[in-house]
Amino acid sequence: MRFKRSLLFFVAILSFSILDNVKAQNKALTLEDLTPGGKTYSKFVPATKQQLQWLGDQYVYALSNEFKIGNPDNTKESTLLTLEQINNSLQKANLPALKSLPSVSVINNDTPLFVFNASGNRVVLNPFTTEIVSVVKTEKNWANQDYSAKGDKLAYTIDNNIFIVDANGSSVQVTDEKDPAIVCGQSVHRSEFGIHKGTFWSPSGKKLAFYRMDESMVTEYPLVDVSARVAKTNDIRYPMAGMKSHHVTVGIYDTESGKTTFLQTGKPADRYFTNIAWSPDEKAVYVAEINREQNHFDLNRYQVSNGAKEATLFSESDSKYVEPQTPALFLPNDASKFIWQSQKDGYNHLYLYNTNGKELKQLTKGAWIVTDVLGFDPSGNNLFYMATTRSPLDRDLFKLNLKSGKTEQLTQEAGMHNIALSGSKKYFIDNYTSQHNPRTINISSTGKKKAQTLLQAENPYKGYAFPEIEVGTIKAADGVTDLYYRLVKPVGLDSTQKHPAVVYVYGGPHAQLITNSWMAATRGWDIYMASRGYVVFTVDSRGSANRGRDFENVIHRNLGVNEMADQVKGVEFLTSLPYVDADKVGVHGWSYGGFMTTNLMLTYPELFKVGAAGGPVIDWKYYEVMYGERYMDTPKENPEGYKNSNLLNKAGNLKGNLLMIHGDIDPVVVWQHSLAFMKACVEARTYPDYFVYPGHEHNVIGKDRVHLHEKITRYFDDYLKK
Amino acid sequence: MRFKRSLLFFVAILSFSILDNVKAQNKALTLEDLTPGGKTYSKFVPATKQQLQWLGDQYVYALSNEFKIGNPDNTKESTLLTLEQINNSLQKANLPALKSLPSVSVINNDTPLFVFNASGNRVVLNPFTTEIVSVVKTEKNWANQDYSAKGDKLAYTIDNNIFIVDANGSSVQVTDEKDPAIVCGQSVHRSEFGIHKGTFWSPSGKKLAFYRMDESMVTEYPLVDVSARVAKTNDIRYPMAGMKSHHVTVGIYDTESGKTTFLQTGKPADRYFTNIAWSPDEKAVYVAEINREQNHFDLNRYQVSNGAKEATLFSESDSKYVEPQTPALFLPNDASKFIWQSQKDGYNHLYLYNTNGKELKQLTKGAWIVTDVLGFDPSGNNLFYMATTRSPLDRDLFKLNLKSGKTEQLTQEAGMHNIALSGSKKYFIDNYTSQHNPRTINISSTGKKKAQTLLQAENPYKGYAFPEIEVGTIKAADGVTDLYYRLVKPVGLDSTQKHPAVVYVYGGPHAQLITNSWMAATRGWDIYMASRGYVVFTVDSRGSANRGRDFENVIHRNLGVNEMADQVKGVEFLTSLPYVDADKVGVHGWSYGGFMTTNLMLTYPELFKVGAAGGPVIDWKYYEVMYGERYMDTPKENPEGYKNSNLLNKAGNLKGNLLMIHGDIDPVVVWQHSLAFMKACVEARTYPDYFVYPGHEHNVIGKDRVHLHEKITRYFDDYLKK
Repeated sequence: MRFKRSLLFFVAILSFSILDNVKAQNKALTLEDLTPGGKTYSKFVPATKQQLQWLGDQYVYALSNEFKIGNPDNTKESTLLTLEQINNSLQKANLPALKSLPSVSVINNDTPLFVFNASGNRVVLNPFTTEIVSVVKTEKNWANQDYSAKGDKLAYTIDNNIFIVDANGSSVQVTDEKDPAIVCGQSVHRSEFGIHKGTFWSPSGKKLAFYRMDESMVTEYPLVDVSARVAKTNDIRYPMAGMKSHHVTVGIYDTESGKTTFLQTGKPADRYFTNIAWSPDEKAVYVAEINREQNHFDLNRYQVSNGAKEATLFSESDSKYVEPQTPALFLPNDASKFIWQSQKDGYNHLYLYNTNGKELKQLTKGAWIVTDVLGFDPSGNNLFYMATTRSPLDRDLFKLNLKSGKTEQLTQEAGMHNIALSGSKKYFIDNYTSQHNPRTINISSTGKKKAQTLLQAENPYKGYAFPEIEVGTIKAADGVTDLYYRLVKPVGLDSTQKHPAVVYVYGGPHAQLITNSWMAATRGWDIYMASRGYVVFTVDSRGSANRGRDFENVIHRNLGVNEMADQVKGVEFLTSLPYVDADKVGVHGWSYGGFMTTNLMLTYPELFKVGAAGGPVIDWKYYEVMYGERYMDTPKENPEGYKNSNLLNKAGNLKGNLLMIHGDIDPVVVWQHSLAFMKACVEARTYPDYFVYPGHEHNVIGKDRVHLHEKITRYFDDYLKK
Repeated sequence: MRFKRSLLFFVAILSFSILDNVKAQNKALTLEDLTPGGKTYSKFVPATKQQLQWLGDQYVYALSNEFKIGNPDNTKESTLLTLEQINNSLQKANLPALKSLPSVSVINNDTPLFVFNASGNRVVLNPFTTEIVSVVKTEKNWANQDYSAKGDKLAYTIDNNIFIVDANGSSVQVTDEKDPAIVCGQSVHRSEFGIHKGTFWSPSGKKLAFYRMDESMVTEYPLVDVSARVAKTNDIRYPMAGMKSHHVTVGIYDTESGKTTFLQTGKPADRYFTNIAWSPDEKAVYVAEINREQNHFDLNRYQVSNGAKEATLFSESDSKYVEPQTPALFLPNDASKFIWQSQKDGYNHLYLYNTNGKELKQLTKGAWIVTDVLGFDPSGNNLFYMATTRSPLDRDLFKLNLKSGKTEQLTQEAGMHNIALSGSKKYFIDNYTSQHNPRTINISSTGKKKAQTLLQAENPYKGYAFPEIEVGTIKAADGVTDLYYRLVKPVGLDSTQKHPAVVYVYGGPHAQLITNSWMAATRGWDIYMASRGYVVFTVDSRGSANRGRDFENVIHRNLGVNEMADQVKGVEFLTSLPYVDADKVGVHGWSYGGFMTTNLMLTYPELFKVGAAGGPVIDWKYYEVMYGERYMDTPKENPEGYKNSNLLNKAGNLKGNLLMIHGDIDPVVVWQHSLAFMKACVEARTYPDYFVYPGHEHNVIGKDRVHLHEKITRYFDDYLKK
């Protein structure tokens, strides 16, 4: 679901420090300091190493006007490449000089190479010799750029068609669809099922698998651009729950023959074709095919030569839903085996399969989940993955020996570890934060060697007034499940006084607001509100991510019900605190959190007095097919569920003050949701407030985000604090 | 300008009574009582005679299940026709019975006839004999129905084409335009220049003049219907100031030959073709043709036979604008002469012209205006008109003898007289109200006879708590001109206390908010606010209607400037009152009044603390060609004027609390205005509030109007009263 990711993006990049005691002389933080897009926001981002990455088994990073290179064993560093050297090379290639270091990525060939953009050209450069390997002129309308593993070919799209350019600059058009409703080479199925792109290079780069999506049967939704001289409509294809969905097929383009073969995926055409993987020999492509009902998938193998289906390796079904999100990962030393992720035992775990579809072994097990697989070492004996073994709030790196079955934890300190393995997988960059640690970057070994610290960031809020943040657990409404909460206390709390409180809520699947990352992932606005005397409280209720299948799928067919029951448990805890004024509890959330905020205001008016709901889902029948039907089935299949979760039916319950906010060109939760809610309130004679951010999509981002947060703050000040 | 009329409509139908002293036991009025569309609103409309009209020289009206007929000399009444009789006649014609009296209109042939709709049929009935003269089945999609004078032919439109049906039910298609952007038989030029329909029967009913409007070159503006299953766009043709305008021509359809001739109006095609009049012999059609710049018009005569232009009778020019709004009226006894209205001497007056275009005589003169011409008596010697001789707040009926030049005033009491002349013009119905008189209906004589009173309505607010209303004058910002104000005092005013005050403003041309009609035309919301302790103040500033040319055209090319200067004079007077709190002055207005409200909040933030602006014009370049260019010229011709009146440029000035409200399918002041303003405020980091009424056009009408007024009331309560 796109909107969850956008939201989490903000959560992730907002991180703040604790000062245990606030001193009178401490400076005050502003929304410009605390909001992404704010003028002074960057001053408060914890220090890091710019462009830190592996170049083979050495690490590189950018510092001022040069790239440094370091030895992982002793972190001894030297200069690899200067801006001056780069510009000398560019000059020889008749390209203009750069004013600052480019943003580089690394192609890990035998000799690792830098790739970067210079004046609209894609430049491949050997950083050791400063020699330019290739230059290809790119154009501004080249979207969805995707390089082959060797970096010698670039697939891209112009409008709805795919093109490929090679290192010599010669290009070829792969698809030639005239109807703009047929889109090739782009992400499909609204980026659900782990899909985030539409082209898939074969390992050698000789073949390109790609998505072709026919949207001609999908209803058009009008987004109006009021900034034009005369407002004009941009129609987007938006399949709403229960309505006609797009048809996706998978093409295979052979760069040598120039021919395209389509996989013979057959009917029904409105299924989901996901988790595309190439067999190592490039003779087959694997596709996980989910039915429209999303309660069953087959992992199928197709012959590349003619597109024929060779086999269904295995299937999974679930009475609620299945949601495969990661392609098969083949063993480097045995092309007949691959790793598959599944939450069929209740938690996302790793399984070893053979290409006959036989499950050979469950590789991981326990009441925790694998969050990411980072790949194998060159021998294929050791698999690296991330998991929540320590707690759902932490992420650690593990090495699993497939032969011995032995698992080794490679990260030591509690926290959210972000890992980059070196070329040979002998080393890894361990970039981690935890609630009280703004950032540590270690260079570590996947073997026995001790970690070396590359960076320890200072608390960027030192000297500023800052709240205390508490993380803990309460029981869910089922009386059994532990839920994690985060409590941001007013700056300079006087616990003999009663304070207004705001619950910041999301509540939907695929999201987790509280982690053991810097500041426990507290948002800047929460800090700001704490500085204004508010308590800010968040609980990751059932339905949220990273707690296992049954924790999340409790929401199935009845969105809002269990999530709200848990949020109410949170409020019970919150108002049990002696310094919280139980008559002054507000709620704020965006997207699914906007749905929750509105629903809580309408369902528990005695608990929630003031709400601010952004980009809210109001009626799930206006939401899209992929996410919507996974959780709700279709309106025809689940009329009760749609009726109960339809906030239009509850508009008459509004008692407190509710500010609803929407971007007028929101392509995710379309504007219709909040406008229909205003209409329902007018008819029910209730009195919400409204605000619109013209020109904004699903989130209000950029500098206007400061305005948004000021707007919301004023609303709580006007109606909750008074 | 359409929006002004819609607004005035509300002003006109809202009228309320004064109680000098409020007594504790008096009941409180609610918004349901005081708002058109409210559940109990009709209880407070002053009594009237339903369907009162002339049937020749006798008057008829509906009472319960029968039509009464009365003698104008003695008001002796009897039963003319009962529902039972009507139903008996309908039964004979095989038509279903009616449950209540139909709404009738009268065709004044030799024997006057009733026309009414019965179960989708147009029925013509002789009310004296109860005989049905004709029945024609009509369809729901027949729009713009227009009957010939004798009532024997009906012109109507289906979509963009014209049809005619005769009394025998045989029908003919007049136009056959395939392109929906070419519209026939409908009002053109956005109903400016007095245009309110698109078909014009010749006196005999043998020929039909009609408008044909080609809008294909006009930009389409998207209105989005969010109540559809998936929001869908309805595009309207909306020509914005300075952009391409539609092309209008005039066709003449001959019902006998079936042929259509178009007037050869020539180029430029984007002129305005207005005030269509038939010569009495039906050989010619007169058209007042205004140039796109609207500073010049020609009165032209065209031959009906071939559409050729015969003559330009005369022209008028003005450095600001000309605005002819009423067609030539020919003398019944001399087809070579006609009456023409012009404000060329500074006030709208009557002139006698001959068909050579020679001005023979100025018939009326003075620092007052003729507001309406009601026609001649059968002899053609006496002309009846309405004028503001008594004061700009009153309307009186006059009889002018064209031979003697003598003028006689036929109405006695001060007030707003609404007149209907009898068939022979010997009598008239005089339906009038004044500030303290809810309604009097007299049957009067245009000769010497004394008036008879048919109805004296009681004060419908008797027993309810009611405010005192004061009408007076202040000096305009020019120091010379008298402006009328209306002051609604708080119910039960304690003049030792300070009260918050709201200025209700319109300010634009073609509107007059204060008249000597019932309650001085005070709106229900103003009464409601007075009952909540507010002072409500209104002043008709320069630029408003019925005060003469120079009073109104002071706004030319600089909309807002002089109107605001006068409103500030109003506030100076208002805050000089001992019981008004000068720190608590708010402002509210809609449409042009929304423009004024927003502009006042941004220009005089020290005077106005809280505003509620509905359907506001924000940037005049988004407004339409006809009204917009009349007052502002084009953006190219008047860049300074457009810049100064563009509230987007002032968004950063907002200091107080401003609630902006808009209907999301407003086809008059398009939504772009207020959305662009929100965007400008976000960029300027100012903080207006917003509300939208989905499914509403330029005014929020029907039952939702109660919600609107409650919403606005709460806003002033929250921010002005506190």
